[in-house]
Amino acid sequence: MTKQQLKLQIPLGVRDLLPEEALRKRNLENVFEQTFRLWGYREVVTPAFEYYEALSEGRGAEEDSQLYKFIDRQGHIMALRPDMTTPIARLVGTKMRDAGLPLRLFYMANVFSFEDPQAGRQREFYQSGIELIGDNNPFADAEVISVAVEMLKASGLRSFKVSIGHVDILYGLMEELGLPEDQKGRIKAAVSNKNYVGLQELFEEFNIPAPAKERFMQVITTRGGRNVIDTAGKLVSNRKTLEALRVLDSVYAALEAYDVTDYAEIDLGVLRGLDYYTGVVFEGYSAYLGFPILGGGRYDNLLEQFSFTCPATGFALGIERLLLSLDREGSGNEGLPAVDCLILYRPAEAQAAFKKARELRENGITVVTMPAAGVNDEGGMIPAKRVITEYLEEV
Amino acid sequence: MTKQQLKLQIPLGVRDLLPEEALRKRNLENVFEQTFRLWGYREVVTPAFEYYEALSEGRGAEEDSQLYKFIDRQGHIMALRPDMTTPIARLVGTKMRDAGLPLRLFYMANVFSFEDPQAGRQREFYQSGIELIGDNNPFADAEVISVAVEMLKASGLRSFKVSIGHVDILYGLMEELGLPEDQKGRIKAAVSNKNYVGLQELFEEFNIPAPAKERFMQVITTRGGRNVIDTAGKLVSNRKTLEALRVLDSVYAALEAYDVTDYAEIDLGVLRGLDYYTGVVFEGYSAYLGFPILGGGRYDNLLEQFSFTCPATGFALGIERLLLSLDREGSGNEGLPAVDCLILYRPAEAQAAFKKARELRENGITVVTMPAAGVNDEGGMIPAKRVITEYLEEV
Repeated sequence: MTKQQLKLQIPLGVRDLLPEEALRKRNLENVFEQTFRLWGYREVVTPAFEYYEALSEGRGAEEDSQLYKFIDRQGHIMALRPDMTTPIARLVGTKMRDAGLPLRLFYMANVFSFEDPQAGRQREFYQSGIELIGDNNPFADAEVISVAVEMLKASGLRSFKVSIGHVDILYGLMEELGLPEDQKGRIKAAVSNKNYVGLQELFEEFNIPAPAKERFMQVITTRGGRNVIDTAGKLVSNRKTLEALRVLDSVYAALEAYDVTDYAEIDLGVLRGLDYYTGVVFEGYSAYLGFPILGGGRYDNLLEQFSFTCPATGFALGIERLLLSLDREGSGNEGLPAVDCLILYRPAEAQAAFKKARELRENGITVVTMPAAGVNDEGGMIPAKRVITEYLEEV
Repeated sequence: MTKQQLKLQIPLGVRDLLPEEALRKRNLENVFEQTFRLWGYREVVTPAFEYYEALSEGRGAEEDSQLYKFIDRQGHIMALRPDMTTPIARLVGTKMRDAGLPLRLFYMANVFSFEDPQAGRQREFYQSGIELIGDNNPFADAEVISVAVEMLKASGLRSFKVSIGHVDILYGLMEELGLPEDQKGRIKAAVSNKNYVGLQELFEEFNIPAPAKERFMQVITTRGGRNVIDTAGKLVSNRKTLEALRVLDSVYAALEAYDVTDYAEIDLGVLRGLDYYTGVVFEGYSAYLGFPILGGGRYDNLLEQFSFTCPATGFALGIERLLLSLDREGSGNEGLPAVDCLILYRPAEAQAAFKKARELRENGITVVTMPAAGVNDEGGMIPAKRVITEYLEEV
């Protein structure tokens, strides 16, 4: 492409938001802010880029390759933040150690990931979420899931579900099979991506006996209410998976107390991709989208990487994905409202027209003023619910 | 520095905002959003990075060197946006040509500039501003200045002034002196930076006669109300400067109609650094800060670079600089509010405690719930205006 062609385009995977979409994003963020504050969460802001050394913590090789990196003029490697969990862990570990625990933090941020763009996957996208730091009680896991549910309800989304698993379900099953590390990694990737065809091929390749294979598949495809935890428990013998089921049971009981189980289900195949998760993990799905609109979980070892040993849990919601879900559901898109009032004026009447505009704005009415000269221009009229013409006339 | 040391730091010139500062930023942005909407402006969002070819439009060599650039995996040069004016010009020129003029747009964004960090100058910072596109009437210049004034008033700032100039004041004066291009560039840089000592040295170097020198200095140091325009007019003979004074007079008259002249003054030395300005330019100063907190002006040729010939004006406000001004003035810093209500509970009473919390939140009360186990932990108590303990007790 020529310089002139490049100039008139934007790169693959990033987007412009025109007024209608920007308004929907802003309205969602305002609703999220309100929800988070009602639950006692406080906003933090971190830089869009920081040292690669900080941002690469807790990421496996594949996630690392998705970082946007560049070299600054001092020769340091910088990366654009791929999420807010690691930057907030760094922030808390270095600057909020004495702020008192538990800490409830929220954020709204643009984040960056170098991926092949596809529906719902952008290279720059907008996340909003929370971190609950310093609390390892199952009630903490249940709280962040409840905030996720409240956030989705407040957004106007009607059909959604939060699917809850635990990373040790799989880690325990793999130990039970006695798999070496490299095989574990490949199985983990297949389960993360819910690639069950690929998983069957791996079982063949690794010579897993049929009954073990079957039990494995039965466990990780288990979904439902609290009762499925018992069922799954009968299929496994390793302590790690059993302990994970026990934790899931406590968290589900807490979710019953929070009264959000209409929107929550156990799904033992939920794993999340990132290496930093250590416990309960979850994903939010709308009925109309094949990929999660939010995801999160417990990450009890990440803060230790920033010299602060402290349990934590949280989640991030993808704003574009939620907007897409709302679209497909036909919810929450009222379009761009017209301005309330357009005041046309002759320059000689400008002062009176502006005084009127000021009074209306003081009453919360949106007002555009337009000098008479502009009125005759083609396309110069602004759509307005009401047009005031009295300042056009000769006095 | 070692990897471990880098991990615990953030790069020079970028910042973390802890909850108190993040709240102040968020509150300001909410106030700005409201102000902009009352004036009929609509938000747009553009990518944090885009093609260097687009973002370098309208920037001189010095500003170009301040762009954060990196190469993407296709070999294209990307830059982090240094402001929002050029991206919005690109957006309007390519995607909103048919949206109807004039267009009133606003934004809130993180922007990037590679500079030596100093007070009020960061490498990543937060801007909020507007663009009024498709209107070349002096009332349009006056409108954006009025919105700037309203925005600063709404922020709680008390002592501030918007200084208004016109780029052709200087361009005309330099033509009058018959200077060659390279000398013009050096004089422009000195005037932009208000480096009057350096300016005197340049006059010596360029052998400017004493009376011309004196007139030049008299013009560019002219400040005051509408009357100073006449005074300055008597000092110059070139058509360009005289036409600029005529335009400034119309804009000032419009500002009188907008009733904002208590906060506005003519300052013929105001120039702004960027090459893309073509007409009236302005800067907002608080009484307690040596550099502008906002700046903007008319840029009638920039959209043409994006295939859309169209006049435009606008401004950007630096959120950190406004926060610093508010601090120094002692305005608008109420600190971080405590949560309204802390509910302590025994796990057996969780359901009743959460029901109570839900009811309170539905009434706009911020509530944190905490299980009894957490209460005894050191530092585990969260500051709250009210503590509910009834769910701690045995029933």
